[in-house]
Amino acid sequence: MKTFIITVGDELLSGRILDYNSHWISKRLTGMGFEVSGISVVPDNLEDIEEVIKKYLNKKAELIIITGGLGPTPGDITLEAVSKVLGKKMNVNPLALEMVRDKYQQLFDSGYVSSPDITEDRKKMAVLPEDSIPLFNAVGVAPGVYLKHGFTRILVLPGVPSEMMYLLEMAIPLLSEKTKTVTRIAELTVDEGDESMLAPLFRKVLEKFPQVSIKSYPSGFGDQIKMRIIASVKSHDPSEGDKILSSALELLKNLLKEGIK
Amino acid sequence: MKTFIITVGDELLSGRILDYNSHWISKRLTGMGFEVSGISVVPDNLEDIEEVIKKYLNKKAELIIITGGLGPTPGDITLEAVSKVLGKKMNVNPLALEMVRDKYQQLFDSGYVSSPDITEDRKKMAVLPEDSIPLFNAVGVAPGVYLKHGFTRILVLPGVPSEMMYLLEMAIPLLSEKTKTVTRIAELTVDEGDESMLAPLFRKVLEKFPQVSIKSYPSGFGDQIKMRIIASVKSHDPSEGDKILSSALELLKNLLKEGIK
Repeated sequence: MKTFIITVGDELLSGRILDYNSHWISKRLTGMGFEVSGISVVPDNLEDIEEVIKKYLNKKAELIIITGGLGPTPGDITLEAVSKVLGKKMNVNPLALEMVRDKYQQLFDSGYVSSPDITEDRKKMAVLPEDSIPLFNAVGVAPGVYLKHGFTRILVLPGVPSEMMYLLEMAIPLLSEKTKTVTRIAELTVDEGDESMLAPLFRKVLEKFPQVSIKSYPSGFGDQIKMRIIASVKSHDPSEGDKILSSALELLKNLLKEGIK
Repeated sequence: MKTFIITVGDELLSGRILDYNSHWISKRLTGMGFEVSGISVVPDNLEDIEEVIKKYLNKKAELIIITGGLGPTPGDITLEAVSKVLGKKMNVNPLALEMVRDKYQQLFDSGYVSSPDITEDRKKMAVLPEDSIPLFNAVGVAPGVYLKHGFTRILVLPGVPSEMMYLLEMAIPLLSEKTKTVTRIAELTVDEGDESMLAPLFRKVLEKFPQVSIKSYPSGFGDQIKMRIIASVKSHDPSEGDKILSSALELLKNLLKEGIK
């Protein structure tokens, strides 16, 4: 499933906070065979958020995951951007309002907040684009939001990592329908410290298996340093992908045996 | 200086490697008063890299920093993408070739590589867009690349973090000319666990100081939890920016004293 990730927040662009969310999401989804095709970090600015959503819709995203900007303060504008791009109205979602109300009652009962009343600022977290499915946030307050737009699924999650992780796990059953392509990845470690020696071998493999992508990750120079090689292939059929990848790796291993030293 | 960061690499999108580069760069540049306005992670794919460079040029970037894809293997295509977008030819840069030659001689003398010869694959690291200034890479081999395009500076650095960090530090004098705007940031910690209580106070501050941006960062609920508030302002004049920011913080502090509890 062709996936793009958008993380929203000035704090990520100033370097005050490390954007761990996009890393965690890409790792989790790649492990499920999804293909993460791009990540963008944008400021808390309506036009920037709209622009990047449009860009990914134009790139035929099957899934867009957006984190951050779901809270009760005026700077939280992610859902407004989503609604504008999709041409959907923003309404109080009764189910989401129920979720927010339950959470504040629970926080009040536990003595964490001074009143359980649903103020306008609290209610804001239940104002969602039309046709949204709210996802109950057991860790925080703001519900996650799941939407479909043509063949694109859009999942909007809070920026607090613990809430994001919880809600992504909750949403995975919604995302696990049959996907168009899967990505297969294999890793190889070789006793070669000089990346420039690998280039001719890679070219030979790529000539025979143009579907495969190969990259090397050196950590320096010298005999003691092992180099990791990552090969990947995209395929409509997982077993076909596995077959191509293992043939390419076989060839690469043979070339490495002959070619270096 | 309006800055955008592009990190290139399939390994960042699959979650195999955490993109620490963009975080480090944004932190370093924000500390210098630069404004990082967007970060994109793109795959090792010519069209994707070209597209995001064009996008940031259209957004009137004053500085674009690109990391990754400078090595000797066929998957290293970042400079080709830069040359295509800028309409510049790719040529062997004599100074860059000298740098690459020196490095391989040094690696050979130390016994790290089996030959100092400049093969076609090694020479590739000296093939730069016309009018590039190569930056000597003391940590690795591939030189960094500095270019000007209209009012936009483009800095292309290797993806290996130690090389990127070294070369960014080397490039900072090139980037430190007078910038159009500076960003001032202040942080405040308050004894309030409930973000929804802050929203009305923020609105009051924003009414009076519309230039200021305010965000709150909760870590949960409850009396024991402190909330961080970040206020920032962009200004052509640093001392003007400082003045606005401290007035806005003064007002916010007073409102916090009166408004909560």
